[in-house]
Amino acid sequence: MEREAALQIVKEQLTEHRYIHTVGVMETAITLAKRYGANPKQAELAAIFHDYAKFRPKEDMKKIIIEQGYPEDLLDYSPELWHAPAGAYLVEHEAGITDSEVLDAIRYHTSGRPRMRLLEKIIYLADYIEPGRSFPGVEDTRIIAKSDLDGALIHSIKNTISFLLKKNQPVYPDTFLTYNDLVKNRRTDE
Amino acid sequence: MEREAALQIVKEQLTEHRYIHTVGVMETAITLAKRYGANPKQAELAAIFHDYAKFRPKEDMKKIIIEQGYPEDLLDYSPELWHAPAGAYLVEHEAGITDSEVLDAIRYHTSGRPRMRLLEKIIYLADYIEPGRSFPGVEDTRIIAKSDLDGALIHSIKNTISFLLKKNQPVYPDTFLTYNDLVKNRRTDE
Repeated sequence: MEREAALQIVKEQLTEHRYIHTVGVMETAITLAKRYGANPKQAELAAIFHDYAKFRPKEDMKKIIIEQGYPEDLLDYSPELWHAPAGAYLVEHEAGITDSEVLDAIRYHTSGRPRMRLLEKIIYLADYIEPGRSFPGVEDTRIIAKSDLDGALIHSIKNTISFLLKKNQPVYPDTFLTYNDLVKNRRTDE
Repeated sequence: MEREAALQIVKEQLTEHRYIHTVGVMETAITLAKRYGANPKQAELAAIFHDYAKFRPKEDMKKIIIEQGYPEDLLDYSPELWHAPAGAYLVEHEAGITDSEVLDAIRYHTSGRPRMRLLEKIIYLADYIEPGRSFPGVEDTRIIAKSDLDGALIHSIKNTISFLLKKNQPVYPDTFLTYNDLVKNRRTDE
């Protein structure tokens, strides 16, 4: 699917603010894909569609998670997590995207997962550091992302976990398993 | 088992520094038990024996974990975690302690676990705040522990997780799950 056609589809699903974010993620994802050897067209497509389900009613997202046999423990955690797997489903069935790598990059862009693939890492990180983001830690992450994909991911996931801990919020298990996986691999590398 | 006999047994297993720590945990655990309605004799016994295996060779602890069918993922994390389950086993088989609540308090005193029982919480916390401990966050935890057992546990587990994150160390999943369990229960209570 061409960029303009894809952007047109998601524009109808998003607020203007979220659409601008999406364009930022797209540009960042393409840059990261070129930098780290992923396919820029896949990165573009996954980025454009990553928040496709963001504004769907919670009940609809819940229904998809249950009916599609997605991990139901998601429902015990923040609804902020639901739009990613629900989005992967809807992007396949409403927008006709069939590339499983693109769909997985959408599916895991909020929670992460252990053994993330390259495209998944790029979308997760692009979502975190696109130019419209401004929160403590984002600038550090942008700097690390210039040379160290896993290092930037670890930094961003640590920030996310620390943020949740400060607010006494539960942390979705896949998120800390992703952290564990990344820091363990890093040690093996060293 | 009487206090003096129990202390005599563990004294032979520990360094002097660790023995002094153990006496601190014992006194703190008894205080917490009285404060929160646990059995002070069980708290005393579990506290005295909580670090029984602390100085066993790693290979011995590993062997116990494998042979007894304890969660083998422990072996992928810090050996600091191993003395707790290995200790529960050795305390039962060498010191003849059979009270399963005491043994579980020893078993989970380092990792925690979801749905910790009262005695387990008390030993976990006493180990963290006994008077010999001095690290950032311990004094806050002592203050919270005066009136809020779960609040103090959450505070201590958050400190532990944050400490590991800062060092890019993996976090044993049960520790995260304990945190999630405690903060979720707290919300249900409120």
